[in-house]
Amino acid sequence: MKALEERIAKDGKVLSADILKVNTFFNQMLDTTLVFDAGREIAHLFEGESITKIITIEASGIALATAAAVCLGVPVVFAKKHRAATQVGQMLTAEIKSMTHGNSYTAVVPADLISKDDRILIIDDFLARGEALRGLISIVSASGATLCGCAVGIEKRFQGGGDSLRAQGIRVEALASIEKMSPEEGVTFSH
Amino acid sequence: MKALEERIAKDGKVLSADILKVNTFFNQMLDTTLVFDAGREIAHLFEGESITKIITIEASGIALATAAAVCLGVPVVFAKKHRAATQVGQMLTAEIKSMTHGNSYTAVVPADLISKDDRILIIDDFLARGEALRGLISIVSASGATLCGCAVGIEKRFQGGGDSLRAQGIRVEALASIEKMSPEEGVTFSH
Repeated sequence: MKALEERIAKDGKVLSADILKVNTFFNQMLDTTLVFDAGREIAHLFEGESITKIITIEASGIALATAAAVCLGVPVVFAKKHRAATQVGQMLTAEIKSMTHGNSYTAVVPADLISKDDRILIIDDFLARGEALRGLISIVSASGATLCGCAVGIEKRFQGGGDSLRAQGIRVEALASIEKMSPEEGVTFSH
Repeated sequence: MKALEERIAKDGKVLSADILKVNTFFNQMLDTTLVFDAGREIAHLFEGESITKIITIEASGIALATAAAVCLGVPVVFAKKHRAATQVGQMLTAEIKSMTHGNSYTAVVPADLISKDDRILIIDDFLARGEALRGLISIVSASGATLCGCAVGIEKRFQGGGDSLRAQGIRVEALASIEKMSPEEGVTFSH
């Protein structure tokens, strides 16, 4: 998606070989027009898949997932990173390692929010080593629903998570795919 | 907002005198059409205020805030509940007590995401005792920006947070305002 690539090139900050900061337009501060255009693009990519539900994880995937969901006319479910006082009943859970924060957490979705008949699209803002997507995939798998694929805003392809999932036969779409990056040279996209 | 009140009456679950569970349509699972209609309604309520930025807090306020923001054509900034590895520089912070989770956390917004010239609308999904809104208001106040008001999806008015803010002269709008509720009697709205 050209508009997203151009915005990353303009306003993204490569802090290290691994960390791309996009918090002035795609995380923490959201350019809501760009996020909506990105959601519409994801909806377009999956419009033949009869998606019934979108799954994401709090917090930074929610805006993109909601934008795609409103275009597809389906609900969004977001996995929480803790169990709230208002959550009772059977839970689907997955342990996820966060490379960004250097810790692990448990992603939790109440089992009654996903049905066996659902056709699921998983959405997140970033894809690096694929830990979050793998956690969400295992939750979808445990629910018995059909996984139609994954879509992310920005894939750091050089970190291998996306290609590892593709090698398992899972459809993974990225709106902007980064082949390499460095603080000195900036970002190079793969096409 | 009639559609939201009707949905709360139909699908909301009053777990106790304090806890209303709306997680099948307004939290964790989002009816994205309803959330967008709610966002549009908030945008309409504040359309004369020349809002330049919407502030919310992760995670469950993000979808509603994003919907209102896209209608007003402004960005969303969400306060995080921790400091991420990618966050450097000066931060605006507020300690917030969570009655739902029985703990406290620090809400964090990078100072450079709010400018003195901004006209801010604060949005959250729920308003009970007003702890989250007060935290966000103190962050806006510390930034030097102008606070134009607060909007929430659901106000549990009997818990007093909204009226306490209104008594301070702050504009607080709620799309659905609950006068009282109980597991036996359900929800009564105030108009």
